[in-house]
Parts: sequence; structure tokens; C-alpha cells
Amino acid sequence: MRNDAQGAGGRVRLKRTGAVPLNRPLRRMESEFISWLRERLPSHRRLELGIGDDAALVRLGERQGTLVTVDVLTDGVDFRLAQVDPRRVGRKALAVSLSDIAAMAGRPLAAVLGAVLPRESGLCLAKEICEGMIPLAERYDVALAGGDTNTWDGPLVLSVTVLGEPTERGPLRRDGARPGDAILVTGNFGGSILGHHLDFWPRLDEALALHKRYELHAGIDVSDGLSLDLSRIAAASGCGAVVDVHAVPIAEAARQLARQSGGRLTALDHALADGEDFELILAVPPAAAEQMLADQPVDVPLTMIGQFTSEPGLWQKDSSGRKLPLPARGYEH
Amino acid sequence: MRNDAQGAGGRVRLKRTGAVPLNRPLRRMESEFISWLRERLPSHRRLELGIGDDAALVRLGERQGTLVTVDVLTDGVDFRLAQVDPRRVGRKALAVSLSDIAAMAGRPLAAVLGAVLPRESGLCLAKEICEGMIPLAERYDVALAGGDTNTWDGPLVLSVTVLGEPTERGPLRRDGARPGDAILVTGNFGGSILGHHLDFWPRLDEALALHKRYELHAGIDVSDGLSLDLSRIAAASGCGAVVDVHAVPIAEAARQLARQSGGRLTALDHALADGEDFELILAVPPAAAEQMLADQPVDVPLTMIGQFTSEPGLWQKDSSGRKLPLPARGYEH
Repeated sequence: MRNDAQGAGGRVRLKRTGAVPLNRPLRRMESEFISWLRERLPSHRRLELGIGDDAALVRLGERQGTLVTVDVLTDGVDFRLAQVDPRRVGRKALAVSLSDIAAMAGRPLAAVLGAVLPRESGLCLAKEICEGMIPLAERYDVALAGGDTNTWDGPLVLSVTVLGEPTERGPLRRDGARPGDAILVTGNFGGSILGHHLDFWPRLDEALALHKRYELHAGIDVSDGLSLDLSRIAAASGCGAVVDVHAVPIAEAARQLARQSGGRLTALDHALADGEDFELILAVPPAAAEQMLADQPVDVPLTMIGQFTSEPGLWQKDSSGRKLPLPARGYEH
Repeated sequence: MRNDAQGAGGRVRLKRTGAVPLNRPLRRMESEFISWLRERLPSHRRLELGIGDDAALVRLGERQGTLVTVDVLTDGVDFRLAQVDPRRVGRKALAVSLSDIAAMAGRPLAAVLGAVLPRESGLCLAKEICEGMIPLAERYDVALAGGDTNTWDGPLVLSVTVLGEPTERGPLRRDGARPGDAILVTGNFGGSILGHHLDFWPRLDEALALHKRYELHAGIDVSDGLSLDLSRIAAASGCGAVVDVHAVPIAEAARQLARQSGGRLTALDHALADGEDFELILAVPPAAAEQMLADQPVDVPLTMIGQFTSEPGLWQKDSSGRKLPLPARGYEH
């Protein structure tokens, strides 16, 4: 759910296309809201993990806690209904929340849908959205438990809440990175607006397999941008991060966008800032990282792109090994 | 959550004021969507109770199932942000979902919020919404576990998901009414648009106390209209219902609306159809009903307004005892 309210306008997908004006103050607004919430929200004995991670961990009974995550998607910000099959929109709405469960290295169990439907297309649209969700739910053994629908004269709004459970190794939080940990990522980055943001596979299997087999210190999924989400895991962990930018795995779609932009933005720019890659950033102790890179134990490539540092902030190493500041870029581009 | 998608446009509050055009085809659309969902949604071993009740019952672990309910509220349909304190809006968004847990005679445990905020009022509005939710969450010992926010140029949309647990007596479903059961209701009906729809107390304590002490066969909360929700509990239970309309407890606000309308609608019309009373309709075997009416064991009055019947459909008894059809009216008025 980006359970820190960091999701505000956080999907860069359509912003890049100019659908939504840039809004840097918004980011500050959201940070302020999170800070306010941390102070204001009452603590509760059932809250094992509240505001500030990809999902909350709530103790509902005697057993281990339940992961809860919600994501809200709106037409014009997270998708353009006029241009895509509604089934892909429904699929994305579920996949985004599943990605939050992956970021906690948890198992998804059930989902409920809240939908506000444009009046004129109601039934047909509702069915197609569900048709898009069902195969993904079946793929990951998620029970679709119901929901609530409303209609209005406005655009489509979808809200998907997913419940899950951490494994016996506990949830993979975002605040556990330590100086010296390797920064490992799954997959490639950038250019997801060309289709990946709708059709991606949440890294559930990968997260479970890696969390079971190796020592992981922290994890986050890349929803708002590789550099921005990396800065979040670093900040939550009280450390910094230095990125070997030449090691960042770049998606073909990012190269394509760079070519189209005529050099205004490089493929690396896209990889660092586009967001909605829904890949994982992991903080891994060096020995385990070495092993993981040698093993390559999951279907998607694992790449080391840098280290967490005791010095706070986000840094890049250029080809000569010099350290320069790396801007944490995401949706506000 | 009106976990049957019956909530479509289902809040009559503002429709009565002409904010949203009447839309009878919409109701049919929604019924069709529910029917479609029942056929189409895969069954799942974790789903103890899926589509068709006020909340789903999902088995997340070895223990008893977890109640899950979601409600989506939109500006212009469920409230008018220009006219009310946002704290009352936040409070309502949580209270509506808590009422679904009450309808299952469950205990609420945790809630998450999904919000789409109008860009210009973001932070201030988000804070006020939370300020409205917090006291209600504290009153019912609900852990506020986080959420997701987005901003856009459209109106405010709120989605609240509440998790709860049934008691040792199990969830109070809506499909358990039997012919001969008394129809008991809590509180008064009608005119909630004058304020009750924002400031009501979900009948959590009442439902728990009654479910513990008496034999209840079925229950539902009145979100869309007394007659409409009564027709739902009857239909789900495979029976009909006859209402002694003279026994229906009428809220003062309903009388006030009737006076204002100059006789176009009676106070009883309002009581039967306004909706958003968020009172409970209970199906109770006769002996238990008699005892409950004598005991009056909760702070809010209990009233018997009729009986469930083996003959399907919704009926009213007039003063001479004749049975006439009673239209199931709710938001489509």
C-alpha cells in the first residue's frame, strides 16, 4: 500500500506523458502528512508494524500477524481507461498490492476490491476489471473475497486491499539495511510506461524463495522510482546508499524512451526515476550477496548495484570511482 | 462492505437532495453484476463466506476466520465536502464499515484507509479526515494500520477496509432467517440526511450483546433503506417478510422531512426508504424475540416490526390486517 502514504500521486507512469502536472510541493505535503501521522496515530497493541513500510503487520489473533496493504488507482494517473483494455487495469490494481506483499516477503491470502465506476460503463467495466483480476488471483492462490462498488459521473477509481501473512522468517521490513550491505535488485528498470506497468509480475515467488534461502536485511518494491525507493529504504534504515550507476540493469523500454526523447533523458535516467518497475530492492549482507549473485537462484536476474553506507544520503560512483550526490528521483519528474 | 456490490450508488442520502439523478437501471445493473460474480468468482478454500453478506469471512490461518469489509465513499454521493466538516466525513467513512462488522455481530480489529484527495486541499484535508477517524477507532478499539493516498483534480474518494473477527457464536449471516421469525430492529428510521448519516454510532456493542445473550437467526444493517435491506435479508434466506407498517419506529428527522415536503412523502415513506440509518434488522425466533422486547437489554430501543414468512416477497399489513405488497425502496427513490 505504500503504507506510508508516500503513494500520493506516486505513479509516474502517466505523469511522464504529461497527463498530470508536475507537483513537487505535493511530495513535501505527503512527507509532512506521514510525519504528522506518525505522531498523531495512536499506537495499538495489535499493530506490530504500522505506518512506514509496504504493508502493515496487524495481530488479529493469537497467531502471527497479518499483512495488510491497500492501493488506490485512478484513471488518468495510474492508467488511461480510454487507451487500455480494462482487464489490464483490473490486473494492475491487484498486482500493485501483491507487489507490496512481495516487498514484505509475505504470502498473499485474500483481496477485496472497492470500485467507483463511471456511470455509463458500469456493468461491462466491472466485469472486465474482475476478469483481469481473476487469473492473477488464481496464479498466486489469492481468495477474491468481495468488495463494494459505487457509480458516479467521475472517472474510474479502484482500491484493492490485500491480506497476507509473513513467513516463519518474519516480514522483510524496509528499515533493516546496515552499512556495508549490498544493494541487490531483481530485473530491469525504466520505461515501464510502455507496458510493463500494466503487465508486470509481482515478485512474490522471488521474494519468498530469496527470503527463505538467504539472509536478507531489508526490502522494498520499486513503485515510484529506483532512486527514490532506494532513498526510502536507506532513510528508514538510518543509513545512506552509494549506487554504481554503470551496474544498474536497464530495461529495453528505457532505451527506447531515451531514443524517442532525442537525448533529453538517457536510458539510465529512465531506469533511475521512471518507477512502476515493481522490482525488488534488497539489502543483503556481503557474503549472502556474493552467494546469491553466484547462484542466481530465481528466474529473474539479480544484480548488485551498490552498497548501503553509514554516511547518510544517496550517492553515485562514476567510472573513475568518485562519489557524487545522486538525486532521489521518482514521480516528481 | 455491502459485500455483494449492492452498494452501487447505494447511498440515498444525497440522491434525495437531487445531487445524483435517479437511476433505476443502475440497480438492475448491480444485481446483474452480483449474479455474474457469484457464477464467475472462483471458490476458494479460505473463503468461508464470500459474496453476498455484509462482510466476507476469510480463513487466514488455523484460527477462526477473519471478517473483511470495504466501503467506498465519494464526494457528492455519500457526503458533500463543501458543506460538512471533513472530520465528520472521515468519521462516517470508518463508521460505515464498522456497521458492516456490526451486521455480522463481529468485533472490529483494524482498519486501513485508501484516499484520493483533491489536489488543492491535500494535506489539510487528509489530516482532518484522520482526526475524524481516530476518536471512533479508539471508541471501538480499532487499530488504524495505515493506508494509501493519491491526489488528483477530481473529488474526494475514501475507501475504508475493516478487519474483524466473529465471536465464538460465529458470524451473524444474512441468510439465516426462517419463516415465523420476528423482524426486530434497533433504533428509529428515516431522515438520516439531516445529520444522522454522518454522526451515527455503528451498532457494534448492541449486536455483540444481543448475539451473545439471545438466539438470533440473521442480521443486516440498514444502509440503503429499511424496506430494501429487509427484502435482501428475506431473499438471502429464501423467505418473505410482512411488515406491520404502523409499528415501524420513525425518527423525528423523518417527520421533519415529511413536513418540509408538504405531504409529498410521509414520515413512514422516509422511514421505509431513506437508508443510511445504520440500524440493525434482526431475524429472531418468536420466544427469543418476546424476551428481547421485554428485556430491552441495550441502550437503543428494540422494536418488532413484522415477521418473516414462507411466502416470498415483501408485504405490509394495513390497519385492518390486510396484506398488500410493500415495494422494496431504497436508493433508487
